Amino acid sequence: MPFDKLFEAQLDALKAEGNYRYFADLTRECGQHPRAKNTKDGETRDVTVWCSNDYLGMGQHPDVVTAMARTAIECGTGAGGTRNISGTQHQHLELEAELADLHGKEAALVFTSGYVSNWAALSTLGARLPNAVILSDSLNHASMIEGIRHSKAQKVIWKHNDVEDLDRKLAALPANATKIVAFESVYSMDGDIAPIREIVEVAEKHGAMTYLDEVHAVGMYGPRGGGVAEQEGLMDRITLIEGTLGKAFGVMGGYITGSAALCDFIRSFASGFIFTTALPPAVAAAATTSIRHLKVSQIERDLQRRQVARLRARLDAEGIPHEDNPSHIIPVMVKDPVKTRMLSDYLMDEFGIYVQPINYPTVPKGTERLRFTPGPRHSDQDIEHLVMALKVLWKQCAIARQTA
Amino acid sequence: MPFDKLFEAQLDALKAEGNYRYFADLTRECGQHPRAKNTKDGETRDVTVWCSNDYLGMGQHPDVVTAMARTAIECGTGAGGTRNISGTQHQHLELEAELADLHGKEAALVFTSGYVSNWAALSTLGARLPNAVILSDSLNHASMIEGIRHSKAQKVIWKHNDVEDLDRKLAALPANATKIVAFESVYSMDGDIAPIREIVEVAEKHGAMTYLDEVHAVGMYGPRGGGVAEQEGLMDRITLIEGTLGKAFGVMGGYITGSAALCDFIRSFASGFIFTTALPPAVAAAATTSIRHLKVSQIERDLQRRQVARLRARLDAEGIPHEDNPSHIIPVMVKDPVKTRMLSDYLMDEFGIYVQPINYPTVPKGTERLRFTPGPRHSDQDIEHLVMALKVLWKQCAIARQTA
Repeated sequence: MPFDKLFEAQLDALKAEGNYRYFADLTRECGQHPRAKNTKDGETRDVTVWCSNDYLGMGQHPDVVTAMARTAIECGTGAGGTRNISGTQHQHLELEAELADLHGKEAALVFTSGYVSNWAALSTLGARLPNAVILSDSLNHASMIEGIRHSKAQKVIWKHNDVEDLDRKLAALPANATKIVAFESVYSMDGDIAPIREIVEVAEKHGAMTYLDEVHAVGMYGPRGGGVAEQEGLMDRITLIEGTLGKAFGVMGGYITGSAALCDFIRSFASGFIFTTALPPAVAAAATTSIRHLKVSQIERDLQRRQVARLRARLDAEGIPHEDNPSHIIPVMVKDPVKTRMLSDYLMDEFGIYVQPINYPTVPKGTERLRFTPGPRHSDQDIEHLVMALKVLWKQCAIARQTA
Repeated sequence: MPFDKLFEAQLDALKAEGNYRYFADLTRECGQHPRAKNTKDGETRDVTVWCSNDYLGMGQHPDVVTAMARTAIECGTGAGGTRNISGTQHQHLELEAELADLHGKEAALVFTSGYVSNWAALSTLGARLPNAVILSDSLNHASMIEGIRHSKAQKVIWKHNDVEDLDRKLAALPANATKIVAFESVYSMDGDIAPIREIVEVAEKHGAMTYLDEVHAVGMYGPRGGGVAEQEGLMDRITLIEGTLGKAFGVMGGYITGSAALCDFIRSFASGFIFTTALPPAVAAAATTSIRHLKVSQIERDLQRRQVARLRARLDAEGIPHEDNPSHIIPVMVKDPVKTRMLSDYLMDEFGIYVQPINYPTVPKGTERLRFTPGPRHSDQDIEHLVMALKVLWKQCAIARQTA
C-alpha cells in the first residue's frame, strides 16, 4: 500500500527501542483459570496466567457463565441499538440499580468499557460545567487523561498521592471555579493506594467535587466489594465513583455512580455514552450476577489476600525484589524493555508461566516490569513453581537480588 | 448533593426545549424479533420495534446465539485483560481474520465498539502522521468528529457528499500534507449514500488516504455483506474501512481493516485500543459466526430490501411524506422535538409500535424525525399496521400529507 512506509517508520522505531508488542494468543477454558491454552508457532499448550485482570476468576464462576449463556439464549446476542434508540434492555436497568446499591448512590450509568466511562464522564464534566478546572493525579490512567484533554477544561496536575500539593493547588484557584479532583484508589501498575480520606477532606475544604476511579478495587475491597472507598467508609463523601465490570467482576463494561442528577447529566450530554451501541443484555446480566455474588461472598477476597501475601513472602525469602504496596498487585521491576521481554519469553517457553512484559506506553520508559496478580485460584504449588522459575532466571540473567 | 444544581440547570434547559430523552425499557426475546417486551409504569406488553439497528435480526439467529452461549460455557464471560496483557483470545484472532477476508484487506483490528474504532483510529492517524490534514464530510458521525478533534490535526470540512468541494479543498492543501479523506457510505439519519467512486478518484488524484465508515452498510450491502464499497467493487482502493459488529451483525464491537502495516500502527499507538479490556471471547465468536453466515446467505438482505420497498410504497400510497434515499433507512421528518415525541408516544401507547423520536444531538435541532428501519422479520401485516397507525395519527395531529 502506498502509505505503508509512513506506518512502518514509526513501527520500526518502536521495535528498535524494544517496545513493540507481541500479543499472546490464549484460549481460556471454563473451570481451568488461571490455566489457559497458549498457541504459538502452531503449537498449543497449557500455561498458568499470572497477569490476568480477571482478578478473582469470576469470569468462570458457574453462576456468571450461566447468566450470560441463558440470557443469550433467551434474548439474543446484541442490544440492537444505542441506549436511546431501542438499545435499553431491562438487563441494563437491573445492572444500574445493582451498581447504585453497591456504592450507596442514587444512580448509576453503564458504558461499553471502563475506558469509555472515564473518557466520556470527565470530558463531559470538564466541557459543560462553568469554569471547570480538573485537578488530576499525576499517575492517572490514560482514559482519564484523554477525557480531561478532550474536555478542553483547565487541567492542574498534582503530585501523585500528595495531599499537600493538592491542597496548595486547590487554594490557588479562583473562587468561581468548578473544581473536580480526579484520582484512582488502586494504581494498577505500582499497586499503591491513594489516601482517599485525606483527599476527600481537602476537596471538601475547597468545595471541590471528587471523581474516584476504583476499577482495580471494585469486587476486591470493602465488605461488599464496593472498593477501597467502601472499606474506608467514604463512599458517601465522594461525588462520583467510577468502576469496571471487566476486571474483578469478570465480564466487560464500565460505569459511573453518583447522584441521580449527575448520572442524568452524563447520560444526557456525553457523546461516548449517547452515540454507541449498548452492551449486550447477556453481558449486563452476567455482570449483575457477578456483583450480587461478590456483595455477599468473602471467600474469593480472602483467598486472593492469602495468595498475594504468600507470593510476597516467598519472593522475600528468595531475595527476589518486588515493589512493596498494600494491594493485590506485585510489580517486579526490570527497568529495561528488552530484558523484560526476555524474562517473559523464558518464563513462558521454559516454565509455562505467562506474565506479559509491561512496557511503554503503559508505564514510563525505563520502568519496564513484570506485574503479577495472584488470585484465589492460584494454588500454593503454582506460587512455588513461579518462585522457583524466577529464582532460576534471576541467576541466569544475573539480575541483582535484593540480598545480593 | 451539593453540586446537583449545576447538573439540574442544564437538564432543565434540555427539558424546556423538548430534547430531554426518555429511554424505552425493552426486553428482547429470542425468535420474536422485531417484537419485544416493553415495560412502562410497572406494566409489560408486546411492542413491534421499528427502529432497531439489529437490521437483519442476526442478534437472534440460532447459530449466532449458540456461538455466544457455547463460548461463554466453554471459555467464561470475560477476556480477562487488555489485548496486550492476557486479553487476546483465540476468538479475537479468528474474528480479525474473518473481517480482513470480508473486506479483502491484509489485516483487521477489533475494538470494543464502532464509536471507539472511529475515535481511536482517526485520533491516532491525525496525531501521529506527519503534517496530517483530515478532510471530513460535514455530516460525519460524532465518533469521527470527536476522533478528529482529539487528534489536534488540521481539519477541513467538505460539503456533504460534494465531490467538487472535496476536490477544491484537497487542491488547496500543501504538497507535504498527509491527507486523509474521512466519510461514511450510508449516513444513518438521512439514509443517503456517498458517491464512493467519485470520492476515491478525487482522493487518488491528490494522493490522499481514504477512511470509509461502513457501519450502517456492513452485512447488508455487497454480495458478501462487505458494504457499499464491496457492492461498487471499490474495497481495494480504500485505505481503511471501518465497521461495526453491533448493527447488522447483531452483536457488539467495532473494527478497522486495511494493510497489515496500517492495522499494526493503530494497534501499537491508539490509546483507545491499548488501554481497555478486550471483548469477551463469546462476543467475538458470535460476531464471527454472524459474519460467516452473511457472507453466503442472501435471504436476509433480499427480504430486507423487499420490506423496505414495500413500506416506502405504502407510505407513498397513503400520502405520508418520507425522505427519499437508496438505503434501508426511512426517515419521516417532523421537525419539532415535542411533536416527534408526541407521535412516538401515541404510536407506542395506542398501537404497540415502537419508534424512538430522533432529536438533538443525534440530528440538528429543527430536523427531528421518526426513523423506520424495516427488516426481513417485519411481516406485510406489520407494515400494514404501521401505515394505518401513521395514517390515523397524521389525521389527528393535522400534519400535512404529501398530497395535501
